[in-house]
Amino acid sequence: MATAQVFDSKTFCIITGGSRGIGRAIAVTLSAKFGPGSVLVLTGRSAADLNETQRQVQATAPGVSVNVITADLSKAETLSDSFSSLTKAVNPSDFQHVLLVNNAGSINDMSRYMRQITTLDVDNLQQYFMLNLTSALLLTTHFLRTFPHREGLRRTIINITSLAAIKPMKTCGLYCMVKAARDMMMMTLAAEEPDVRFLNYAPGPVDTDMYREICNESIDQELREMMIGVETNNVLLKPHQTAEKLALFLEGDGYESGAHVDYFDVPEKQENSSS
Amino acid sequence: MATAQVFDSKTFCIITGGSRGIGRAIAVTLSAKFGPGSVLVLTGRSAADLNETQRQVQATAPGVSVNVITADLSKAETLSDSFSSLTKAVNPSDFQHVLLVNNAGSINDMSRYMRQITTLDVDNLQQYFMLNLTSALLLTTHFLRTFPHREGLRRTIINITSLAAIKPMKTCGLYCMVKAARDMMMMTLAAEEPDVRFLNYAPGPVDTDMYREICNESIDQELREMMIGVETNNVLLKPHQTAEKLALFLEGDGYESGAHVDYFDVPEKQENSSS
Repeated sequence: MATAQVFDSKTFCIITGGSRGIGRAIAVTLSAKFGPGSVLVLTGRSAADLNETQRQVQATAPGVSVNVITADLSKAETLSDSFSSLTKAVNPSDFQHVLLVNNAGSINDMSRYMRQITTLDVDNLQQYFMLNLTSALLLTTHFLRTFPHREGLRRTIINITSLAAIKPMKTCGLYCMVKAARDMMMMTLAAEEPDVRFLNYAPGPVDTDMYREICNESIDQELREMMIGVETNNVLLKPHQTAEKLALFLEGDGYESGAHVDYFDVPEKQENSSS
Repeated sequence: MATAQVFDSKTFCIITGGSRGIGRAIAVTLSAKFGPGSVLVLTGRSAADLNETQRQVQATAPGVSVNVITADLSKAETLSDSFSSLTKAVNPSDFQHVLLVNNAGSINDMSRYMRQITTLDVDNLQQYFMLNLTSALLLTTHFLRTFPHREGLRRTIINITSLAAIKPMKTCGLYCMVKAARDMMMMTLAAEEPDVRFLNYAPGPVDTDMYREICNESIDQELREMMIGVETNNVLLKPHQTAEKLALFLEGDGYESGAHVDYFDVPEKQENSSS
């Protein structure tokens, strides 16, 4: 049995941070490409926002079942229950393609430079690594165990990364660190699991709450001006644009597993259909 | 007042993980190059091993004062006290060069692949990030605040990194992740603090306890064979060799701040004196 195609096959998909921004756009864009009988699970902290994403998905992809799970992935004590609920009542052999999108994440406090971080911050640091690093790692490994290798099953795991994973940004040091570490997590997994497709996708500069936070809250004037310049120069993307580009990358399937690809890296195939 | 030269000036130096292996070799090698009145502080978990490093330093660099501090950098509750003890009774204006070597670190459990990490491991993961990431970050920022910018003062911060920071190694995923994150920490600091010299130094394959651990304990046969092959092919380095190469890099001072340099990257200057 050949491995299922990327789209139009019966898909089970989890998207974390699916309540807004890029996560919501990915949910709406990818769902429309899933085959009959597909199931989408969305996780986020706001039930109201998750319900709105669910409504938008159902409007464009009425054949996809959508489950919303309110969960805080920074809470170590409830992680195990959260993960169980994400894959509850799922029969692993029921799907041709299983897809995990690790999108949840947060920018660090940008009111200080790194030198101003003190031992008083130790609990906040560990909490930040919990949300942005540990929980993504544990969800990924839970997903791999829930859906072990099966002949013909396609498995795809996407890390929503950032230019910050490879290029330092002043006042965003912790964010840069966790993005670099998450990229490396995917690279190691790609080495260990050759039959799973791993992708680090950097969505480009997108008009999200996080973009506005950086523009307004970083104490580094140079960074603020650079970010504001993105909008002034009309390079700021809408969430649906980056979600469509991600879909192109997935469909083209030409990336090396574990690679870091950026919105501005045009996929080798489907170049003409790029938005 | 011009900035002090790298060596032969009155230096205050902290080396973490100075009780054995690469940390000990760096202590012995660099101390011999410090100017009169220099102070070396060594930290590690074993008092006996620290005392042996102190003895070796005093044999080759009798003019350098050596303080040993027994400390466990993975203990959040004692970090603040540990850092205070490292810089206790130091007059920041007393030195021409201050140097921090973040060498302490640990390899992860190599008896499993990454997919086998479960939510039961959450405390161990957070502890691993504490030792390898959070404590290095907090010590670095403590050091920068203890020794603020002063005309003529040279400040150097070294991260002992690994090829694993840029190249994935099967069964060493957590190690790869923290090394990638530490490299990025230094890159961001280099952007934020242009008058401090930051260096990510990858020491090459060195005959240390960690090397033996990987050879013996990784469940990945390919990795074990590759590591054992390093010794078979006579490429395995002695700790003093990599410490001498680090000294060459520092003395040449030709690296870009925040760069990742490897033992096998010959410094642009002093090529002839390379061992």
